Amino acid sequence: MPPTTAVSASSSFTLLRVPSSSSTKLKPTTTYIQIPNRFFPKHPTFKMTTTTIRAAVSIEKETPETERPPTFLRESDDKESSSSSASSVRARFEKMIRDAQDSVCQAIEKTDGGGKFKEDVWSRPGGGGGISRVLQDGAIWEKAGVNVSVVYGVMPPEAYRAAKAAASDEKPGPIPFFAAGISSVLHPKNPFAPTLHFNYRYFETDAPKDTPGAPRQWWFGGGTDLTPAYIFEEDVKHFHSTQKSACDKFDPTFYPRFKKWCDDYFYIKHRGERRGLGGLFFDDLNDYDQEMLLSFATECANSVIPAYIPIIEKRKDTPFTDQHKAWQQLRRGRYVEFNLVYDRGTTFGLKTGGRIESILVSLPLTARWEYDHNPKEGSEEWKLLDACINPKEWI
Amino acid sequence: MPPTTAVSASSSFTLLRVPSSSSTKLKPTTTYIQIPNRFFPKHPTFKMTTTTIRAAVSIEKETPETERPPTFLRESDDKESSSSSASSVRARFEKMIRDAQDSVCQAIEKTDGGGKFKEDVWSRPGGGGGISRVLQDGAIWEKAGVNVSVVYGVMPPEAYRAAKAAASDEKPGPIPFFAAGISSVLHPKNPFAPTLHFNYRYFETDAPKDTPGAPRQWWFGGGTDLTPAYIFEEDVKHFHSTQKSACDKFDPTFYPRFKKWCDDYFYIKHRGERRGLGGLFFDDLNDYDQEMLLSFATECANSVIPAYIPIIEKRKDTPFTDQHKAWQQLRRGRYVEFNLVYDRGTTFGLKTGGRIESILVSLPLTARWEYDHNPKEGSEEWKLLDACINPKEWI
Repeated sequence: MPPTTAVSASSSFTLLRVPSSSSTKLKPTTTYIQIPNRFFPKHPTFKMTTTTIRAAVSIEKETPETERPPTFLRESDDKESSSSSASSVRARFEKMIRDAQDSVCQAIEKTDGGGKFKEDVWSRPGGGGGISRVLQDGAIWEKAGVNVSVVYGVMPPEAYRAAKAAASDEKPGPIPFFAAGISSVLHPKNPFAPTLHFNYRYFETDAPKDTPGAPRQWWFGGGTDLTPAYIFEEDVKHFHSTQKSACDKFDPTFYPRFKKWCDDYFYIKHRGERRGLGGLFFDDLNDYDQEMLLSFATECANSVIPAYIPIIEKRKDTPFTDQHKAWQQLRRGRYVEFNLVYDRGTTFGLKTGGRIESILVSLPLTARWEYDHNPKEGSEEWKLLDACINPKEWI
Repeated sequence: MPPTTAVSASSSFTLLRVPSSSSTKLKPTTTYIQIPNRFFPKHPTFKMTTTTIRAAVSIEKETPETERPPTFLRESDDKESSSSSASSVRARFEKMIRDAQDSVCQAIEKTDGGGKFKEDVWSRPGGGGGISRVLQDGAIWEKAGVNVSVVYGVMPPEAYRAAKAAASDEKPGPIPFFAAGISSVLHPKNPFAPTLHFNYRYFETDAPKDTPGAPRQWWFGGGTDLTPAYIFEEDVKHFHSTQKSACDKFDPTFYPRFKKWCDDYFYIKHRGERRGLGGLFFDDLNDYDQEMLLSFATECANSVIPAYIPIIEKRKDTPFTDQHKAWQQLRRGRYVEFNLVYDRGTTFGLKTGGRIESILVSLPLTARWEYDHNPKEGSEEWKLLDACINPKEWI
């Protein structure tokens, strides 16, 4: 997973375009990072630049590793204590996403009964790294990717200075940031078995305590969403119920709010339709207790297997025709359109010059585009399309 | 073909974002048009806006037609005489692209021996319209689209006022523009038979003669390029030779200049490779005699059949394996990546809310993405990739 994937995917982000250093250890490309818009409240500088700001950065080029390290955190982070726990939120979030990667991959391999994940581990000299795992051409899944990454970067002072009075003459240095996330797309072969996507991420800025005007902030983002080619109402209800249960343990407003956010985010504007049947999506979340949100993200990640695997077990062997398969492939085409044209994680990721194979692992193995394909009204294909055009309340 | 397709595809264009009128006949979406950067030479207003300017527009919603009209030109245009000919450049360009559409479609159908083009005709109440033709699942071609369009639009005064002294107090109205083009992508089934793309377009601004500061300008753009999955050197030489011959009839600098422009334009930046083996690409061309450039565009369009059909005849029945097909499908994936992420005609077209099916007819019927696929060094697949990474001089 490239650096930006962990921190992207929200209209509440401002994109920072950051040409990288000329050090031989650093990439010779431009890197993009995203900072929430609240860091640029009313600063006149940023009005002129719409969403792109140029500044210096120090995200280093990744190097392949032969073994998974116990942690991708810098040593200082790993030992750092937070007030509420024996280890830092960073450390516990990294442990959470790595545990989730292990358990999801185990569940996929067990259900698939044939395919095995291929693993690529990479790190950066100054700290951070990631594990990409891809299962391709399994018995059940055509392509399944489950990636985790931990990124240390530097936020330019132009960003956080906007958060305080603009008249300040002090010139603080760049502010380090930390981002970690898990990102996964699971595309099954059988056209009656749905695609699943999930992504959970944590972001922190890390200003020294005496830095004038610097924010010391954190936020969570993420979500899980379902993309079937055919609707089995009991499957969609089961999926959304699992998401709602996870939400309701924390706040009764979460499910309706994040369900709508999901319908709004995965919108293919040029088609006037969503890529699938939604689920949860949230971003830039920090107006709740930090420990509560860490628990919520953990609960969501832990809900992936119970939300998804029972549906796959039920549908994986359903007999299908070439027409069913062609329709699934057309919907995969829509998935490609959304990811390449709109998805912020993907589109910004492509510009980072980062690990392209990790970014594009979200694309299906195969996809299809037919000219002017219009499902017959009332058909099963039409019902799916209708639900993508007019999002429904499933529970 | 959507309005912007005819006038897009160049880094020398400035994009105009133009919210459409609220008239019931007009689309309720935002429309983008592109104006060459030379209209914004050093005007301070445009420095702040990078490439996007908002202004009023009056491109109307298209309506389907049951018959092809003799011309999509407004009556006044059709009768207008230019100094050098009995009919206007607009009229002759429209005739040229419609003739080219007919002859290319006839050649494709004849070579295919089975598939037939499906035709969609559309028009706009105030003039303009188009003909989309698609052949799908033929004997030889998987998907072949050949579209022509004629567009009348309005360029906001902010655009052309930049061309004269900025201090002027006069407030001229919007300037009408005219754009016409042919655009085609031909994807064969056999992995040894190459994909071909071509597009030729003509653009005119149409300011009343007494409009202060208004430009009365025209320009040509276009090109033809070849995208094989496997290299047959004789095929690539034949293709480039035909392009060079067309160029050499007009100017010996055209081929080397437009060949390089093509290599530069069809670059998939995140992959560090081109989508294919190039050909010609030019845009914003008006620093030659207008009649000469009309003849040149005509010559290029007339070269499509002799450049392409002999290659297809030679390769259409070549035996192939599943591996050959899978490699072709991976290269089709690259085609999708270029078109959805970089191609200006496509990306701007998607934002117009125009005829999506005409815009996306350029996408292949099927495509494939494998994780971390790396052809073995020295293999035929590797040779193609190498030529996409390091463009070659073929003749």
